Parts: sequence; C-alpha cells; structure tokens
Amino acid sequence: MAMLSAAKNAMRSLGSTATFSRMLHASPGSKKIVGVFYKANEYASLNPKFVGCVEGSLGIRDWLESQGHQYIVTDDKEGPNCELEKHIHDMHVLITTPFHPAYVTEERIKKAKNLQLLLTAGIGSDHVDLKAAAEAGLTVAEVTGSNVVSVAEDELMRILILVRNFIPGYLQVIKGDWNVAGISYRAYDLEDKTVGTVGAGRIGKLLLQRLKPFNCNLLYHDRIKMEPALEKEIGAKFEEDLDAMLPKCDIIVINMPLTEKTRGMFNKEKIGKLKKGVLIVNNARGAIMDTQAVADACSSGHIAGYSGDVWYPQPAPKDHPWRYMPNQAMTPHISGTTIDAQLRYAAGVKDMLDCYFKGQEFPAQNYIVKEGKLASQYQ
Amino acid sequence: MAMLSAAKNAMRSLGSTATFSRMLHASPGSKKIVGVFYKANEYASLNPKFVGCVEGSLGIRDWLESQGHQYIVTDDKEGPNCELEKHIHDMHVLITTPFHPAYVTEERIKKAKNLQLLLTAGIGSDHVDLKAAAEAGLTVAEVTGSNVVSVAEDELMRILILVRNFIPGYLQVIKGDWNVAGISYRAYDLEDKTVGTVGAGRIGKLLLQRLKPFNCNLLYHDRIKMEPALEKEIGAKFEEDLDAMLPKCDIIVINMPLTEKTRGMFNKEKIGKLKKGVLIVNNARGAIMDTQAVADACSSGHIAGYSGDVWYPQPAPKDHPWRYMPNQAMTPHISGTTIDAQLRYAAGVKDMLDCYFKGQEFPAQNYIVKEGKLASQYQ
Repeated sequence: MAMLSAAKNAMRSLGSTATFSRMLHASPGSKKIVGVFYKANEYASLNPKFVGCVEGSLGIRDWLESQGHQYIVTDDKEGPNCELEKHIHDMHVLITTPFHPAYVTEERIKKAKNLQLLLTAGIGSDHVDLKAAAEAGLTVAEVTGSNVVSVAEDELMRILILVRNFIPGYLQVIKGDWNVAGISYRAYDLEDKTVGTVGAGRIGKLLLQRLKPFNCNLLYHDRIKMEPALEKEIGAKFEEDLDAMLPKCDIIVINMPLTEKTRGMFNKEKIGKLKKGVLIVNNARGAIMDTQAVADACSSGHIAGYSGDVWYPQPAPKDHPWRYMPNQAMTPHISGTTIDAQLRYAAGVKDMLDCYFKGQEFPAQNYIVKEGKLASQYQ
Repeated sequence: MAMLSAAKNAMRSLGSTATFSRMLHASPGSKKIVGVFYKANEYASLNPKFVGCVEGSLGIRDWLESQGHQYIVTDDKEGPNCELEKHIHDMHVLITTPFHPAYVTEERIKKAKNLQLLLTAGIGSDHVDLKAAAEAGLTVAEVTGSNVVSVAEDELMRILILVRNFIPGYLQVIKGDWNVAGISYRAYDLEDKTVGTVGAGRIGKLLLQRLKPFNCNLLYHDRIKMEPALEKEIGAKFEEDLDAMLPKCDIIVINMPLTEKTRGMFNKEKIGKLKKGVLIVNNARGAIMDTQAVADACSSGHIAGYSGDVWYPQPAPKDHPWRYMPNQAMTPHISGTTIDAQLRYAAGVKDMLDCYFKGQEFPAQNYIVKEGKLASQYQ
C-alpha cells in the first residue's frame, strides 16, 4: 500500500504545449466510437471472460448501443482501404490497445475532424503521434495501472526463463532428446545475481517487490529516487547514472516508456558497454532497442539471453531478426493482456467513456494528453 | 533465517530397521570411488565452472588422487556390460546424481562386497533401494540443502510459465506466426490465484516465501504444521487433509519425496478430484504421478497445464507420453543442477568424503541411511 501511494505521488504532472483545444466533453447526442483490437477467431468462444478481442469488444457493446451510440470494432487498421480509414472522418472516439495498435499518425489526426478522444485499452500511447494529438487539442488517456501487475509478473517469469536456460530444455523435450549438459552448462540460479531495472515506475516497483525474496542485488535507475522508506521496503539501490549502473548488471530489465529520448537507446555502442553474457528482459517497447544491434549481440554471445513481448513494428513480420537469433525467449505482445488484465482495462475504458458522456474528469493519472496539454514525461 | 532454523528443527529423525552394519568409516589405504554423472561432450569446455558432468567430475579428481584413491567416473550405468557394473564388485563409494542416476538395486548391492557409502550429488536417494541398502549396513547420504533454492526458483518459473501460457507464444515466434488471441484466451495473472504445495519441507518453504509478494492465496499440506511465527512470515495456510486442500487449488506444486507411500499417488482417481483447469508443477519425482493419467487429463483439459523436470524413468524415452501431451512445459531433469547448485553439491560431496576418510560424522541432516539405520521418513 505504501508502494501504491508513493507511486501515485510520483505521477507525472501536466504541462502545456497545445496551441488550441477541441472540446473534450461530449456534446449531446449519438457518438461514433471505433475500437481496434486483435481478432480472436476460433479462440473467441473458448472463454467467456475473453473481452479484449474484436469479438469480445471489451464487453461494452450493449451498454454503448443502449445509450444510442454507434460502436464499430475491427482489427483492420493498416493501409488506405482498411476498415479503420472508413471511419476516421466522422469518429468521435478511438479505442485501441498496445497489443494490436491502431497507429494514429499526424495525417490520420488531420482527417479526423470529429475526433475528441483517444483511449488506450491498456497502458502506453506511443502508437499515437502525441505532438500532433496535442496540437489538435485531443485528449489521450490510458487505463493507468490496469496491467502493471500482469507485466511485472511476466518480467519475473522471463528473468527466470533466461537465467535458468529453460528454452533449450523445452525444445529437447518436444524433439525427443535428453541432454542435461546442453542445458546446465549455462543454467544459473537467480540468487546472488545483480538485477537492474531501467525505470522504476509502477511496473518496475512491482517487479522489484517480487524480486526481493530471491536474494539478488537489486539496482534501479529512474528520473526520481524513491522515498527512503519505500527504497528500504523494496530493497533496491538507486543508480542516478544509467551508464554507471548498466555494466554492473547480470540482468537488465527495461521499464521505461518509449519517447523520442528513449527510441533506439540500446544501440550497438550502449550494448557494447554491458557485461559480457548479460541477460535482457524488455516488456516495455521494442523500439527502445536497435533491432539489429540486439540480434548481432545475441549472435556474438555478448547478450547471453533476450526475452520480451514487444517488437517494432507489431505484429512482427515473419523475417524479424529477433525470431531467429540465438538464446531468445520472445513471445507476441501478450504480458499486459491476460484475462485478468483485460477485465481491468475493459472496466477502465468503460469508466472513462461514462465520464466523457457525462462531462466528468477522468482519473488524473490516466491522462497522457488532456485537451491538448501533454503530460510532462512525454514532452 | 527464521525459516532456515525452523526447517532444520523439522528435519527427519533417525530410526532403525537395520539388521547388521558394515563399518562406515574408511579403513586405512586406497579407496575405489565411482562417480556416475551425465556426460557433457561438446558442452564440457564451454564453462570452467561446469563441474557436475563426467568431464568436470565434481572437480575432486586431483584432490582424491593426490591422497592415493582411485576415482572412476562414467555415465555408462545400464545393462550387464556397462562401465558401472565393471566396478561394482570392488568399489567402496558410489557417487551419483538424480539428474543421471545410477540405479542401486538390491542385486547390485549384493554384488558390491566392498561398498560402504552411497552419496547423492544433489538431493534425493530414491534411485537407491533403501531397504536393501539398510539391510546391507550401508550409509546413504545426500547434500541436503545444496539445491533447494535452485529447485524453488525453478518451480516459481514453471508456475508463471503455465499461468501466463508462455509456451504457445514462444512457439508462434519461432514458427513465424503472430496470434495474440491464441495465447491470451487462456493467459492469467498469478495474483489472486490459489496455490497449494503438497509438502512444505525446505523447497516448499522457499517456494512459499518467493510466492508471498504475488498476492496469492497460499496453502500447504505437510506432515508437520509450521510454527505459528514461521507460518505467519510465509503467509500460507496449513491444510491437514490433503484431499480437502487439492480441490481448492488453481495451481498445485508437488514438493514431497518419492517413497512407497507417494509412488503413483496422483492417479486417475486423485486427478479427477482436482479443480477442472488445474495447473500442476512437479519438480519432485516423476513416479509420484501416474504417467498415463496425467497425459490423459492434459488431453481432456482437466489438467490445463503440467510442468516439471522429473520423469520416470530418466532419461525419458523418446515415446514418453509427457513429451507429446498438450499444454506441457517440461524439460529434462535440470532444476537442481544449475552451475550454482553444482558448485554447492560438489563442495558437499567433497566434505563428506573428507569426513569419511577421517572417520568423522557427516552433517546430521545429510543422512538417508546411517550405517544401516533408515531415516524415519523413508521407513
């Protein structure tokens, strides 16, 4: 609980870069709401709680339509003839998700004359050109916190998968092989290793909290040092200088947003400064890494293992080098869209839509851009 | 620390079933010591700390030979013409490991006229016919505690792999696919789920301790209820009646030794009483489960995921049904043989050999059979 309130205290404050502002609050009458989610096809009917897909539509169709609103849901989001493009000119609200993002470019924002609100079902709005959205006076919001536990748990899983060299063992099993040495020569305990998180926002803090009983040496780099009491509770040491922290780490976890400052941050030069044999977990955003530099360092062995669920672009093309580099434990973008997370972010989107219809404020921490004003960390 | 001392307090006491006893302490002169480990081949030279394989020989060859002892090391352990059989008649000590066990049958014990000491490099002695070993007056000992952290970490990894449905995501990646729905329709958070451990000895306690920050509902069944202070620290609820606990669990972790009482315990009837969709992690011993009953329940979906590193027999044959059942996340027997664990159990074996040569006692908790007397939990 101390952790949550401290995290809230550290939330971004709002600054201003907007030149004009559209009305956020819905004018009376029917609204056109477009949702872009991933399609489930044969999986849709297998779980009644599976609301995060096109077919599940966040479970808000009846609620929206009973109030006279129009609700278009699709996964068809690319190219000039896609379903999304057909609705851009007259939609009021666009809901999408990091797991199958509708990329909201400056060009699309210019076409979207009625658009007022961009909602992320989940966390993160880097699929939106935030500068253009702010200049157009839009509001951009996410369901802050909706899947932080989901992502933190997944990060810890990936740390263990890499440290303990799980993948070669699993592949032996399904191929009919048995070769303990081929796994154990590079399998380690997590205990006593140095784990550093680059970014210690809500997800980073939840990860550190879960790492504590593993008796590691925990480090964190962030813009903000934690309160001493929280730091002690979490058991992690603050590293003000990122470049000083990175070479100390056996395991590095990326927990910062993608911004213009962080895009491509882990390039060949930065990776070259990491400990040889470092393990990297990245559930933040794929574009924080230089794709080819990561693949090359995995091939050379400088990076001994890389795991994450984020890629650029998404969906990852069939020839994305991370699919085929050695010692990877990658998945599609999944960590924040467990069934539990889907139920939470669907509820959060519904709450914000309800506020929008009623002319009420959203929870303060949800705003990325508020009526044209960009939150400080995105400036 | 409280945990460790409580665990020690709960250690097995020794009982007696032996009819006669061979001298444990080494008579003066050269001893013949045989080690049976897994072979590393091309992996042997890739890590200088890789001591757990035939080639590494626990790193004790120079130390043994400098004292005039003979040290034979092999992985060839099956059939009448194997390397192990050649040395059975005159060896004094046999060292082996659960990861590639030399099965010590009554027949082999009868042949081994000079045998005094059976050491497990690791934990567990179910590869030994303990009744026959006790009747022959042998001493059987393990390196208690040498890999409990390794196994507990691995169990937590497997819980997360199953709950979060990691495997289908990884397989999509390497096949060039991208289908988030095919993963997320049955991916969950660990938070708020009910996890029960069957057995809360040292490994079970370390697992519970690591699970605590995940905010689960933790249950444990054991012969012994923990001290109230330890129970509170760990945050788990005691379940005296195993059959009452099992149907409550979303996730069941097996943490008990293989004995005549536990062999085949999870048969069709027992599995039928578990919650539909249960996840099972078993790093204890494969033979605790009825192999075909587990495979059938995975196929029907009654078990929604099964992960572990133990099989019967080991190495698992190419046609073992667990290799091919749905929703498995199996590996060869690996969790207790990380590099860190190898260094600990190699040091523990060396210490016991040193005691044996000097006529000193082993650490009390290491004994399975002490000069013909079987430890109570094996009776």
